[in-house]
Order: sequence, then C-alpha cells, then structure tokens
Amino acid sequence: MARKKISSLDLSSPEDADAAQADLALRIGVGTYGATDEIGRTGHCLDQLTRAGLDVPPAVVIPAAILDQSQSEPDLLRRAIERAITLLEQASGKRLGAQEQDQRLLLSLRPSPLESVTGMPRALLGVGIGILAPSQSAPDAVIRRGLLRRLAAMHDDLLADTLEETIDTVLDAAESAGEAPSEIALTDALAQVAAQNSEALPANAADEVLFGAQALLAAWHAPRLQKHRAATGTSEQTALVLQELAPPMQEGDGRADLSLHDPQTGEREPGGTLTFGKLGAESPLSGTSSWPIDRANAASPQTARILELANAAQRAMRRPVTARIAVSGGKPVLLGAAPIRATAAASIRMALDAANAGEISRDEALLLVEPKSLEEMLHATVDPGAPRLRIAHGLPASPGAVVGRLAFSAEAAEALSITGEAAILARPETHPGDIQGMHAAAGVFTTRGGMTSHAAVVARTLGRPCIVGASDAQIDLTAQRLIACDGRVFGPGDLITLDGSEGVALAGVVQTRRPELTGAFAILMRWADEIRRLKVRANADTPHDAETARRMGVDGIGLCRTEHMFFEKGRITVMQEMILADSEAERRAALDRLLPMQRTDFERFFEIMSGLSSLREPAADMHSAVPVTIRLLDPPLHEFLPQDEDGIRDLVEATGLTAEKIRHRARELAEYNPMLGKRGCRMGVAYPEIYEMQARAIFEAALAVERRTGRQQSPEIMIPLVSAVRELELLKQRIEAVAQAVAEERGASPHYTIGIMVETPRAALRAEALGAMAAFFSFGTNDLTQMTYGLSRDDAGRLMRDYVERHVFEADPFQSLDIEGVGELMRIGLERGRAANPDLQIGVCGEHGGDLPTIQFCEDYGFDYVSCSPYRAPIARLAAAQAAILHRRAEQEAQREQGA
Amino acid sequence: MARKKISSLDLSSPEDADAAQADLALRIGVGTYGATDEIGRTGHCLDQLTRAGLDVPPAVVIPAAILDQSQSEPDLLRRAIERAITLLEQASGKRLGAQEQDQRLLLSLRPSPLESVTGMPRALLGVGIGILAPSQSAPDAVIRRGLLRRLAAMHDDLLADTLEETIDTVLDAAESAGEAPSEIALTDALAQVAAQNSEALPANAADEVLFGAQALLAAWHAPRLQKHRAATGTSEQTALVLQELAPPMQEGDGRADLSLHDPQTGEREPGGTLTFGKLGAESPLSGTSSWPIDRANAASPQTARILELANAAQRAMRRPVTARIAVSGGKPVLLGAAPIRATAAASIRMALDAANAGEISRDEALLLVEPKSLEEMLHATVDPGAPRLRIAHGLPASPGAVVGRLAFSAEAAEALSITGEAAILARPETHPGDIQGMHAAAGVFTTRGGMTSHAAVVARTLGRPCIVGASDAQIDLTAQRLIACDGRVFGPGDLITLDGSEGVALAGVVQTRRPELTGAFAILMRWADEIRRLKVRANADTPHDAETARRMGVDGIGLCRTEHMFFEKGRITVMQEMILADSEAERRAALDRLLPMQRTDFERFFEIMSGLSSLREPAADMHSAVPVTIRLLDPPLHEFLPQDEDGIRDLVEATGLTAEKIRHRARELAEYNPMLGKRGCRMGVAYPEIYEMQARAIFEAALAVERRTGRQQSPEIMIPLVSAVRELELLKQRIEAVAQAVAEERGASPHYTIGIMVETPRAALRAEALGAMAAFFSFGTNDLTQMTYGLSRDDAGRLMRDYVERHVFEADPFQSLDIEGVGELMRIGLERGRAANPDLQIGVCGEHGGDLPTIQFCEDYGFDYVSCSPYRAPIARLAAAQAAILHRRAEQEAQREQGA
Repeated sequence: MARKKISSLDLSSPEDADAAQADLALRIGVGTYGATDEIGRTGHCLDQLTRAGLDVPPAVVIPAAILDQSQSEPDLLRRAIERAITLLEQASGKRLGAQEQDQRLLLSLRPSPLESVTGMPRALLGVGIGILAPSQSAPDAVIRRGLLRRLAAMHDDLLADTLEETIDTVLDAAESAGEAPSEIALTDALAQVAAQNSEALPANAADEVLFGAQALLAAWHAPRLQKHRAATGTSEQTALVLQELAPPMQEGDGRADLSLHDPQTGEREPGGTLTFGKLGAESPLSGTSSWPIDRANAASPQTARILELANAAQRAMRRPVTARIAVSGGKPVLLGAAPIRATAAASIRMALDAANAGEISRDEALLLVEPKSLEEMLHATVDPGAPRLRIAHGLPASPGAVVGRLAFSAEAAEALSITGEAAILARPETHPGDIQGMHAAAGVFTTRGGMTSHAAVVARTLGRPCIVGASDAQIDLTAQRLIACDGRVFGPGDLITLDGSEGVALAGVVQTRRPELTGAFAILMRWADEIRRLKVRANADTPHDAETARRMGVDGIGLCRTEHMFFEKGRITVMQEMILADSEAERRAALDRLLPMQRTDFERFFEIMSGLSSLREPAADMHSAVPVTIRLLDPPLHEFLPQDEDGIRDLVEATGLTAEKIRHRARELAEYNPMLGKRGCRMGVAYPEIYEMQARAIFEAALAVERRTGRQQSPEIMIPLVSAVRELELLKQRIEAVAQAVAEERGASPHYTIGIMVETPRAALRAEALGAMAAFFSFGTNDLTQMTYGLSRDDAGRLMRDYVERHVFEADPFQSLDIEGVGELMRIGLERGRAANPDLQIGVCGEHGGDLPTIQFCEDYGFDYVSCSPYRAPIARLAAAQAAILHRRAEQEAQREQGA
Repeated sequence: MARKKISSLDLSSPEDADAAQADLALRIGVGTYGATDEIGRTGHCLDQLTRAGLDVPPAVVIPAAILDQSQSEPDLLRRAIERAITLLEQASGKRLGAQEQDQRLLLSLRPSPLESVTGMPRALLGVGIGILAPSQSAPDAVIRRGLLRRLAAMHDDLLADTLEETIDTVLDAAESAGEAPSEIALTDALAQVAAQNSEALPANAADEVLFGAQALLAAWHAPRLQKHRAATGTSEQTALVLQELAPPMQEGDGRADLSLHDPQTGEREPGGTLTFGKLGAESPLSGTSSWPIDRANAASPQTARILELANAAQRAMRRPVTARIAVSGGKPVLLGAAPIRATAAASIRMALDAANAGEISRDEALLLVEPKSLEEMLHATVDPGAPRLRIAHGLPASPGAVVGRLAFSAEAAEALSITGEAAILARPETHPGDIQGMHAAAGVFTTRGGMTSHAAVVARTLGRPCIVGASDAQIDLTAQRLIACDGRVFGPGDLITLDGSEGVALAGVVQTRRPELTGAFAILMRWADEIRRLKVRANADTPHDAETARRMGVDGIGLCRTEHMFFEKGRITVMQEMILADSEAERRAALDRLLPMQRTDFERFFEIMSGLSSLREPAADMHSAVPVTIRLLDPPLHEFLPQDEDGIRDLVEATGLTAEKIRHRARELAEYNPMLGKRGCRMGVAYPEIYEMQARAIFEAALAVERRTGRQQSPEIMIPLVSAVRELELLKQRIEAVAQAVAEERGASPHYTIGIMVETPRAALRAEALGAMAAFFSFGTNDLTQMTYGLSRDDAGRLMRDYVERHVFEADPFQSLDIEGVGELMRIGLERGRAANPDLQIGVCGEHGGDLPTIQFCEDYGFDYVSCSPYRAPIARLAAAQAAILHRRAEQEAQREQGA
C-alpha cells in the first residue's frame, strides 16, 4: 500500500468511511453555529491549518461521541486507538515501537474539548517510547521522563500513586543532593513498580497509547475539573487528538508557543519563548535553556522562520493565534495553533486592526470577539496588581468590583445609602422583601444559595456585583457580624471589597478599575448594531435600571416587573392593606392611594426612555417612543404579606388591624405549590381592580409624558401567566375600558398595545387563538422551563448538580435554554402565533434572554427581540450580530447544498 | 311573498344564509360525536322529527353561540328575536300581535341546552298574547295567567318581584276566599305594576318575545342552576327554541307528555296524562281535569290518535321518547319529543328490545345507553322507599351506598375492619397516611374538600362510597364525635348510612340494594366488547383492587401505584428507616427487608390477573398473561415521613432514632413546590437501589407465578415523571441488569417491558427520542394537566369554581380532559412516539381515563387503551364501543364528503 500522509482532514477517505460504518468513526465534522461538534477545538484548528495547505505532522481525532460511548463500552476505545495507529503509521511512513529511531513513530495525545475551557489536562508527549524501557539516548531520556511525570499526574488509581511516588522519591533525592537524578535510579524504581503491577502497565508501544489515552480521559473526568465545568456551564465532552510527535533529536531542538500579538493590549508584538531540551515537561534534567522570540530577535534566521510559520498559521485561521511550533532536527515544524487567549480589550483591538487592514471582513472581525468576554469591560474590576486579603470565597453571581461598608439588613443598607455611603448588603440569603435594600446597596454578599438564587438573579438584574453561597464565611445576624474564612470578624460599617467576577470578598479597600465603553469598544458595538436583525431590550424594573439600560445601548425595555415598585417603603403597607381588604370597595380605596405612586414611576420611566438612544444614535433623532413592555402584577399576593412575627407587628402598628386577621389572611393565601398557584392573570381575573389601577397609571403617565416631551408613548402592556384564551379576552376588555375612560377624561387617547407573557406550556400550544388577540408574545423562559420539565427552580438545587454531572441534563436548563424541549414549545408558539397574526411581535425575556445559544435560536427562528438584564445588553448586541452572520452563512450553505 | 311553512329544518334557505352572514345565524347544525353543538338538545330533537317528515308547528332555534355573544352585545339578542319572528310569521302565515284570534301567532319559548341536564327553567307558553292586555276569552285568560306566573318566577329583578308579589296577592286572596280570582282583580293589579314600571314591561307582542327570552336566559343563568351545572360538569351553554304555540281553543283541548315505555323497567307500557284547560301552568283557574293515557284507554279514538303520534315520534327519533303533544281545537298536534328519562336498567332493556325486534341496529342500541348512567347499576343504592333521616349533605365524591360504624381515625377504621365490622372513616379531610384506613373502611366521609380532594380521588379509585365537603356537619376529633346538620351527635361505633351517589349521610341503618351485573347488563357489555377497539384497563393498587377490576371485566391493569404498598402497617416503618438511612448500605439493608413484602404483593397481583377474564370469556381460555403496568415509586420521600409530633414519637419508639434526626431529615426533604420537586424518576436516579429492589420484586414474583400457573407473565414496568431521555436510559440499564441477575439466579428469564409515564410536557415534546427507547407510553393526564396549565390541583380549588362559572375554563380540566391544550400535547407525543417506534403501546391513566370525551379522543387518535378506576371500567367499555361507532361514522361521513 502506498504511504499516504493523512491528517485529520483526510479521514473522509473511503477506507475511513468503512471504519465509520464499523462504528469507529474517526470523523471530522464542523458543526452548525460555528461550534466544533465532535472533533473539538484542537481538532478544528488542525483541520483549518491542513485545509489551508500548511504542513503539520499527521493527526487523527477520535470524536467525542466515540469517547462518550466508550465509557459504557470500553473495548470501543481500544479499537479506536488501533485504527488511529494504523492511519498514523500509513501517513507518517513510520512504525510505533520500531527499534530504529528514524523509523520510530512517537505520538502526542491531547484533549480537544468541544467548548473553550480553562483548566484541562496537559498533553502527553512521546507516547510510544516505552515508558519502562531503558533510555538509549539523551533525548529519549528527556521524553520518557516528561511522559512519565505527566502520566503519573493523571492516573489517579493505585498504580499511578505508586508510580508518582516512586518518581518523586528519585527526583526529590536528586534535588536535595543538588544533582540530576541518575537514569539508573529512575529505571530501577520503575522496574520495581512494574514488577508489582505487571498486569497494569503497558507492555508494548500500542498498549502504551491506549494507556495514555485512558490516563488523559481519566484526568479530563477528574471530579475537580467536572465541578469546574459544571460551575461555568461548559460542556463535559471532549475529543482526543493523536498526532505524530516531532521529537527533539539534537542540541538546540525545542518547542515554542508563540503569538504575534500582545494578549493584554492586542498590539502587534510577537511574543514567546523557544525552550530547548524540554518537551513541555518540568523535568530538571539535562541542560535546559530558552531563547525569547520577540521583535529584538526577529533578525535571526531561526526566529524569522519560526515567525513565518506563526504568521502562516494566523493567515490560515484568519484570526490571531498562539502557534505551537517544534524545532526537530534543527527544522521548525508547525504542530498546531489555537486562538490566542487575550483580554476582551485586546480581542477587540486585534479584530478591528485586522478588519481595518483588510485582512479579514467586518463579519469575521465581529466573530472574533467572544461576547461573554465583554463582561469584563462592562464592570469595574479589582486591580490585578493590588495587594489583597481574602475573607470569603463563593460563586461569582454578578460581575463587577465594588468597595463598600457592611450592612446586615436591607434597612441598614438603605440607611447607609442615604448618607451617601456605598453599602454591601450581607445576608445568609435574600428574600423579595429585601429588594429595596438591594437597590440601595452597591453590592450583595450571601453565604447560601446558588447561581439562580434570589440574591443572584436580582443582583444580576440590578447590575450589582454579587457573591452568593460563600459558605466558608458565616453571617451571625444576631451579633451583627461576618466571620471570615480565616476567623477574623467584621462588623457593621466595616469596609470590604467584593469581586463579583471572581466570587471573592476581600478585606478593606482594594483598588478597582472603572470600565471604559468608548473607543474600540464603541466601534465594535456600532458594527454589531449595523449587522444584527434581532432587537435587544433590557429587563428594567426601576428608573435607575432604565438609565443603565440606556447607557448599555438597548432598543427598548422588554420587561418591567411592576411588583418591585410595591416593595418600596411607604408603598408596601398600602399594598398590604389592599390585600387585607374585606371588600372590593376597600381594595379600591387602597388602590386609589397606590395609583399616583405607580403613575409617578411610569412617568419617570417613559421620560428616561423617551431620551433613549443606543450609543450610536443621538437621542435628538428620535421622534416616536421606544418600546417599553410593562408586566402587570405577577406574584401571588401572599408574597407581599409579612413573613415573620416582626413584620406582622409592624403591620399591626401601621394599619391598626389585628395580628390574628393578618395571620388568618396569610393562611388563607398560603399555597401548596406557589409556582402553580393563584398568581399572574389568575389574580387579575379574581381582582380586576388591581390591573385596572395599573393600566390607568400607565395610560395617565404616558399621556403626561407625551404632552411634556412631544414624543408619542406607546407602552406595551403584558399580561402574565396566561393559559386560557378567555383570560386574555377578559383582561383585555378591562384594560381597553380603562383606556377609553382615560381618553374621555383627558381628551386624548393613549397609544398602547396588549400582549401576553408566554410562560405556561398551554399558552404556547394555544398560540394560534392567543396570537389572534394579542399584539405581542414575550416568552418567559424561566417559568416555561419549570413547567415544561415539571421542575421547580427553587427545588432543583438538590438535584441539578448531580444531574448535570451525570449528563442527565446536558446543562442546567435554567442557565442555558433547553432548545430541544422548551425551545420546541417556543417554536410551536411562534409558528402558531404568527399563523394567526403575521404582525405578532415575539420576544424572549427572562434569564435566558442574554444566553448566547438562545440568541442564536431566536435569530434562526425569526424572533423579534431578546430582553436581558441591562448589563448583558452589549453582550447580547454582539451575540445578535454574530447570530445574524452565522444564520446567513448557514442559509448560504444550505442553498449551495441544494444547488449541488 | 308566498307563505312558507318553515321549521328549524328550513333555516338553511338562501334568505337565512343572508341572515347568517349578518351574524344572526339562526342555524341548525348537528355536531360531531353525536353531541348537539349549537342548537342544543331540544332543537336537535325537533330537527330529527322534521327530517322524518312529521308535522310539527314551525320553530326557530337561536344557537348557543349567538346567545353567548349577546351577553356582551345585548342588541344581538333583539336582532335575533326580530329575525326569528319574521321567519315564524312567514312559516305560520300568522302575525304576532294580530287582533283576530285565528291570525294571531303565539309562541312557546324554551331552552335547548347543549348537554342533558336536570333542572332548568320551564318553557314560557303563549308569549305574544300581551301580558298586560285584558283577556277577551277564557282560553286567553288561562294562557296569560300561566305565562305571567312563569315570567315572574324567572325574572329575578325588582320588577319581577313586584309582578310576582302582585299576582300572588291576587291569587292568595282568591284561594283564601275559596274562589277563582277575578280577571279584573288581576288586570287591575298588573296595570298598577305596569304604571310603576312603564319603561320595563313589554309594550307590544314583539317586545314581549324579547322580554320572555331575556327572562328565560336570566333564569337559565341563575346562580343556583350555574352551581348545579358546575358541580355536575355540565355545559353552561344553551340555545333557545321559539315555536308556534298550538293553543287551547275549546273545551277538551289540553297537553300531554307521553311515553310508550315504563321509565323504571323499560317495558312497553304507554304512560302519560292528558291535562285539560291548563298550559303547563299551575294556575288554579278554570275547570282543569285530566285523563290518563294508558293501555286501558287505548281504545278511545282520541287516545289512539295521540299514541299514534307518540309512536311516529319514536320511529322518527329511532329511540324511546317522551312525546310532547297538544290537543288544539280538538286536534292532536305533535309539538316535540325528547329521549325518555329512564333508569339505566330500563334504558338497557329498551335498547336490547328494540335491537332484538330489528327496529334499530346493535350500534344504535349501544348508543342509546348513556355510559354514565351505568354507574347506578354498579353500586349498591339506598332503597328509595326506605325511611331516612339526613345528618349531613356534601358532594357525591364516589357513588354507592353503605352502612357502617363511625371511625374517626385510620387506625380506628382498621381496628373495626379487623373485627369484621364495616367502618365509615370520618375525618375533616384525609392525607396519604390515611390510605390504609381508607382501604379498611367501607365508606369515607369528610367535611372539607372538593371533588378532586385526596379523599375523593382515593375513594373513587378504591371504589368506596364517599362524601366530601359536607360542611353542614362538623367533626370534632378531640371529642371524637360528629355533630350532624340538625345538631345531633354521633360517636365512635355509631351506625350511619352513606349514600355516595347523592352525597348524603343518613342516621342509622337504611335499607340498601345490591347491584345486579347479569342479564341484560351482561348482554350489553358483550355487545360493547365486540365492537370496541380501545382496550380498557383499571388502575389498581392492591390485590383487592385487582379482584374488583376482574369482576368489572377489564383487559388488564393500566396503573398499579406501588407506593400504596408501603403505607401498610409494618412496612411504613421500614420505609421510613430506608429514608432516614445515612448511606447507600443502610438504605439497601432496609430495602432488603421490603423486598419480600413487595414480592408477595406482586405475586398475589399476578395470580389474580392470571385468572383474569372479562365477563364474556372464561378464564380457562387464557394461556398468556394479561398486561399489568406497575409504576415504580413516585411520591417524594418526605410524604412517607410522619407529618406530626405523634407520628415522630411513634417512629422514635419503633426505630430508636432521635426525634431531632427525623425532624432534620424532614426539613432537608421539604420542598417549595412538591409537585415540581424531587420525585418519580428523579428519586430513582438519585437512589437507584430503590427501583432495583422494586424491579427485583416484580421479576421474582412473575417467575414464581409463571411456575405455579404455567401462564407467562409479562409485567410492564413504568418509570414515572420522565423529562429527559437520559433518565429513561439510566434506569432502563439498571432494571435490565436486575433482570439479568435474576435470570442467572433462577435459571429463567423474566418477560417484561419498560416504558414511561408521560406526565411532563417535555416528555411529550421529546417523544421521538423517548419512544425509540420505550415499549410503552402511559399519559398521566393529572400531572400533565397541572404542568400544561401551570396550575396545581391542590391549589386550583381557590379559583376553579370562579373560573368555570365565568367560562374562563369551559370545564374543570382536572375532571374533563382539556383537549385543546393537554390533548394537543398528547397528540404530539403520540405522533412523535409512533414515528420512532410504530409498535409503541400508548394509553392514558389517571382520572381522565374514564372520562367520556377523553375516551372518544383516544379512539379518534388511535391510542391503545385507557385505564380508569375499576368501578368505571364498565362505563369505559360502553363508552369505548360508542366512540368506535361514532369514529367509524365520522370517517364514513368524511369519505362521503370527499366523494361529493
């Protein structure tokens, strides 16, 4: 058989198709949405380099699906490895385990994760060398020892422990003697281990590859890394790359990871180090030295050739990369390349520079910046150089850095904020009643709860830095103190610093850096806005939120939750009186007092949004209103009643009602399953006077602002938790009647539309009838997810981690939209709604609105907008632009395929 | 214009088509499924008579949709009435309000409800006579007074009160004077009312028709009737029939309601009374007398002509009817006819007789018996003649009559039952922990809760007579007594009688009658079984249930809830130990003790079902197993822990654990939304050893029974609450491994299938992937309804009545399947599941399994079976036969339409 050089790219050859059919598919496929299905990111990069015609050592990728399957079918991995070895031997013309050094095939094995992830096992280099064989040359000794160290670090079973211990003993002895450990000592020790474990250690080169692959996969699946991936919502799946090693063969051979840009600033400045005599291992053996590769050295022919290879890789991948280069036998070889890991600012700078230089298109430039990475630019950050003393470590629930004084209650936070001090609200956990305190606070800290706890969700919406579940600290509310992880105690008013991006609380004042949203960032956003189809709105409950949303360049407000307005001081009591009223007349009397408060809120809201512009568009250009979606009261009434005896006592004092009456009403309103109870429009149907008051407040405010600003207001009134068509019909009639009454009183008709929040499965299923009657649908994906799964978010905590770790759910569906189930209902809802009403405006609000796959899904299915928390809006704007580009590409691809 | 005689049938003429377009559609349409959409039952009967060519006075039906719409658009009713009058004038050649008596059109107005209902407003007869005009003839006086009385009884506003009062005063005066009230006195009084209310009373004949229609509709919508309809789940909708009146004109004229069968026995025995000088009013005026129409009188020419008309009506409607006949001017006139209201036994007898005589087909005979009516034959009934003393009145939650001794706790009921006494468990409400007491009790009585409360649902499943929500009595648990509605007190052991069919509790022993399931009943069931395609299974949790199911002729067990087995004495403690265990090993130790108990249960189950035959088929004919679907443990673990301090104390004694530990675990397991929490397969995934124990018990029991009986057992193992494909995959692997292990131990492989309960919306949406892996789907419509609506059944009580009364929901979706929403998900699930796996068995379990529209839905969409409580099985068998017939007819109809 002719010697054939195969790389990952050649795997679609007929022979490999046979192999694929034998369920040993070593395929390469590039998935939709630009993600790298199956072959992973490392495999994908190799694919790109090879497609561009660059000469890289042959490689084979074992796809993720095969590896997954091999967990229950261990023999599958063995067969995959055998097949890979055959292919690599054909391609390289060498043979695994060959005696002659120039005939000998050595491999590198590295994971190729399906999603970018920080923290993964390092590559195994030199697999096939025979880890137990005596070294016949110095380079072999370097290779063998490096490989052994990494293997031992990976294998976490008994054998590995012994192996690692053995090596450590030898190395430690050498180090303490101030000399290199003798090759013989090492080999002796290893022979001893091998004798004790003759079954387990690989007997030949082929077994060594399987052994290495198993070690690498075991390391990948180590609990520590699994937890990290679960916490960051990164895929558990990885592929495996086997590549021919370009080994060090002579003095001066070495390896370099090299990039052509400064990863901090993005400036064109080559940087890297060529390391000799090593193979990436930390072995202190042999005369290792290194040589910086930079502008100063660029004149050297060796450096010039290496830079040329890096440049070639960068051109091939059409993006700034870190190139992996070996010098083997004096000759530089390109082994692979990966997108450069850079700061967001650097990524933007590199993308704009490349586009402006004409090297890539604007589309490509937009795709080069990871939307999530913008987060670090939108918030203050802790100065990385500043000294710090950690007092607690929790989950990074809401990003940003802030310095403030400790407050142990919502009231204390409010009191501090009135004096102009920044407050850090510290509680074991937060409740709806704490909402004003959270507004007043500059940051939030809790010792309990997860990423979707009340504190986390509200803080993200408010854009407050927040750490939750910091269980290594304790909050003692009685003694009013925080006990840090090191035992130190902090009291009310003590200064601390929160780093919400990292999830750590620090003692005292630590220097922070302000975000910078101009310059390159603003240009990138302008490009994104020009390209995206999907509108980006913000969830904003208060005028303060609305102002933030404006700064973040949103196209409107997608969700204003009116209930938050009722938790304010001076209002909650009136709200409670309303709930405790015995008759409609009493209820209406209380509502009459709430009306002017709501109207004032909405007036401020409309005024702010009337001046709305995205960063690219001056406010003066706008003549008509931007959309503001206002959701009528949603939570069950019992949420507004006091939760404890203190609260009841306060309410007794404020209202003169008896405690018994308050307790009785609370009991009456208590529910077995509050999530499935009397809330949303069910309450609106039972007590229509509440929604009537809210509608009146909206209409009167809109007319007032219209008069003052001359800009037409057009609020979108949203009815929550609809499940039956008649609910919409009844409430729509009521709201229209209020509009009519206001029009007659004021001599001017308010402009408005009425739509629904689609958050019950039934609303999606009945979307045709509902769509005919509604002006808009806004999918409330939080509740829709709970009901579609039959799983309460509040109760999911006790099983979610286990479920994600065991792949029962691929990801936490409350963090990442469940496209297959919930998305399917959304698709049904959209199609049926639009069939009845082609003008139906359709959006998504809720936590998923800023989620990247959700945005792609919304783009692909023709949603009109997504709505997310204000601080996620720039991320969503960039993601929407990327989604538009990828959608267009996929369409073109599909057309080409149809044409072919 | 030519005088045209129109009836309800002629309304499809071109002129009426115009009217229809003017949204005044006075249409007649016969709906699918044999129901009478739009024109109602009275209209439908008139339609049938006219189609058969019988001569009935012209009539017009205002359809239900128009009447519904007219509630928000009052002018619509006026226009509909005007149009109806025009049509009736054309058809009769007479004129409303004409002076000449032979030219004068008088009308009868009667409701035409969409569903059969007991209790509705009586017809208004003689509308158009001018209620305020002086009577010029004796017959006119009779008509006017009868009409006035009924109008006054209907109109419940001030005017009506005055009117009724006025008439009552005059009538009372006359009665107390022992004479007929003078016409002049009445007219004077009415003139006085009219003067005071000149605006409101109808001034002319046309206004009188509108006034009458409004009165009739107001009476139909009276709160008392609405509540009755809501309680019986009957439609709120009605149409309105306007028909020319055949008025009494001379001495001897009168009216008769006449049937040709005895409504008690079904025997051919004409019965009815011709009443003279009345018009259905209770007016004591004029010389009223009556004449029995029966076999003895059949020779009289008048009677013979009347019987002939009734016979003609019966032939036309192809079913036994009560014919409404007037004698007007000496001539008998057929006014209409309605299906005879007969006992179930009589209905069966009449249907079989007619089919055997060749008058109707077997299909028609099967359609003549109302499935729901069979209920009265399946249960003991209180002897209607026996004297009785009511002690409480509640909701008829589960039918049947039973005499027993009062027990105020589950334990007391069990103790009584051990001594061989029938116990009546009386509690304010029941809880899952009471399940054994409910099993032991012969009847259940609660003072709280609705038709879907725990007591009601469990009692129906167990087939125990049950009354819930009897709020006119009180149960004092401390004093151990029941205080009756009349204040009398009953203590433990006192005898009472429950009539679960009527919802009343009676003092002492009241004579009851045993059900009789042979003879005509058995023949009807055999006919039904021959025709139906849909299998009927029973939900049965205990061997006792399984025996009942056999007697009720089911095709298998569709749902055996294994958790009920754990509530038994001696088991619950072991179960609790399992839950309180700190490690998998401790859990397994407790499970090892539960295993033999579960195995014994299943053995008895399989033995009973191995002898299974429907009533038509001797058990000896069967060689292979009947299907038994066993659901693995479903409820959240906290349901098994004690709910109060007493229970905790008992558990401490039984186990030696500390109360603190029990409380701690209970707190740990508590959930915000138990319905959306860690239950079903989520628990199975977390603690697979529980499901493994259950699977082992099933397999071992099946093999043992197979050995003993020689009949192959093939249990269907059902995994509850699946929402992700991987849940099924993981648990299927576990169960298969257990089967493998059992096979190796016993040397024989158990036969079994594994399927899922589809009760989350996501399972239905992901049915393709799940169907590929499952042998069967069983739709758990209770939970599916809760999740599709986002409405908890436990919390729905506080809004359901209001929602149904206001037509927000057409019916309580927990009682009557929501075809549009939940049914849509089922349809999606079925289609996708079958697409992946054409052999997928698909059924419905849960409360809806015995619901008639659900059965029709299941027939139409090709489900394989429905499963309901054992006592509903005969009803479901008949309903399935009817569904098959109607489905075939609808298909033939569709084919004809395609052909045309």
